[in-house]
Amino acid sequence: MSGARLSFKCENLQKAGAFKARGATNAVFGLDGEQASRGVATHSSGNHGLALSRAAACRGVRATVVMPHGASRAKTRAVATYGGEIVTCDATMAARERTLAEVVDRTGADIVHPYNDARVIAGQGTCALELHEDAGPFDAVVAPIGGGGLISGTALTLAALAPQTRIYAAEPANADDACRSLQGGRLVTADAPDTIADGLRASLGDLTWAVVREHVTDVLLATEEEIIDAMRLVWERMKILIEPSSAVAVAAMLGHPELFRGQRVGIIITGGNVDLDDLPWAA
Amino acid sequence: MSGARLSFKCENLQKAGAFKARGATNAVFGLDGEQASRGVATHSSGNHGLALSRAAACRGVRATVVMPHGASRAKTRAVATYGGEIVTCDATMAARERTLAEVVDRTGADIVHPYNDARVIAGQGTCALELHEDAGPFDAVVAPIGGGGLISGTALTLAALAPQTRIYAAEPANADDACRSLQGGRLVTADAPDTIADGLRASLGDLTWAVVREHVTDVLLATEEEIIDAMRLVWERMKILIEPSSAVAVAAMLGHPELFRGQRVGIIITGGNVDLDDLPWAA
Repeated sequence: MSGARLSFKCENLQKAGAFKARGATNAVFGLDGEQASRGVATHSSGNHGLALSRAAACRGVRATVVMPHGASRAKTRAVATYGGEIVTCDATMAARERTLAEVVDRTGADIVHPYNDARVIAGQGTCALELHEDAGPFDAVVAPIGGGGLISGTALTLAALAPQTRIYAAEPANADDACRSLQGGRLVTADAPDTIADGLRASLGDLTWAVVREHVTDVLLATEEEIIDAMRLVWERMKILIEPSSAVAVAAMLGHPELFRGQRVGIIITGGNVDLDDLPWAA
Repeated sequence: MSGARLSFKCENLQKAGAFKARGATNAVFGLDGEQASRGVATHSSGNHGLALSRAAACRGVRATVVMPHGASRAKTRAVATYGGEIVTCDATMAARERTLAEVVDRTGADIVHPYNDARVIAGQGTCALELHEDAGPFDAVVAPIGGGGLISGTALTLAALAPQTRIYAAEPANADDACRSLQGGRLVTADAPDTIADGLRASLGDLTWAVVREHVTDVLLATEEEIIDAMRLVWERMKILIEPSSAVAVAAMLGHPELFRGQRVGIIITGGNVDLDDLPWAA
């Protein structure tokens, strides 16, 4: 279908169902003993909170996750299962940051940001490292972009190991802040963009923007319909569950065959955490 | 959850999405040149028709698949995609057999039965061979039972390579003909049993019954609710699509922890062809 030779890095099969385990684990296990005793904290309504709870449990330290009222029951249950302590707050970004600051004041926890954190970026970079070692070198690698932690780790890894590999960031057309940032040459942020790819609603931070600007070849966009079609295609043909954010990379690749035809292409499937009671093709 | 160490053979990732590719390929590629020129035929509303069409296409010979009116559009489309010629008939078994006989009269095609065929049983046996070589030896192997082709191939393979491995056949409680056959010591057939595990509605044939009677340790039953729960569990935790028939093996294993606790257990996931518009947990 693509005309290319595709290799998929299946982070949907990763612990806790997403690549986020990598950055969270790197951050938690890099803490010195005294800091570790005070635990870690983050605000996240998604896979990062889950991954941080799991990483903290692996080291035997405390994780506090600030989640907005109305976060999905599946997500809160999963965080609790891994032993994360949940503190709820209003859904605004201001409330989330204020609540997180209160947690840190009270506990002395170390804040592990979901993407704008060098330890997290380094951890996410191990994903491209494995992909390159297992199936590379590639002419191109395609990975989704949201806050930019994964694409930054990917770009830094491949800049060192395979500088000839082109790096494409795949972004929902409905949340195209990274695309506009790269085109305009300065960081643009988006406020709560509306896309089914819920893992890609965040905007770049200063650390990730610096890497994206320097190392990403281009940002490729996919429409909501293309994302859903690609998600269903992967489910039906590859028999694996991927979340909409992962489908963005597949959709962006299929939407630009002229860039990849006849080439070796690595695609990072970022996660597989979906709500089976709310599938996008349900009538 | 099981208390056992589980290894899964993922035939949902097999060509055409099910283990059926094995038996069909073995049958088609074992034909002599003259017979091959006249093609193959079967009646099947499921994965076997698809697998036979694909195997025939791989060898470049003709496959005719007799399918009942009302077979799912997904299945008929898939058979046609692989180049199989579809002949429709009424949904009764008599009509299917009569129509198949007409096809054979007209074309001289070789009938490849979905399970009661030594070539098919031998082909299905390669699944347990790979599972044993990759992750065995096992204390026990669990595989679904419908017509008995897969379990017969599994049992014959392991009887030769690992005679100490116990073989459990997993069957829907709503289609328990194999269970009743083994308990009563004589072949019992069921007429169109009602179970969501559509791949397991067939009854044993004389060839498969002879192997099951001799080599299967026991038949374990699973209710419809247990099947659906196991299917959803595998989707959510393992992030792979499995069809209800595959979930029967998982459900039967989880339902009998006393048989498997502390042991090494191989489970055959038979296929992943599901209709995403008609999931069993949909409201």
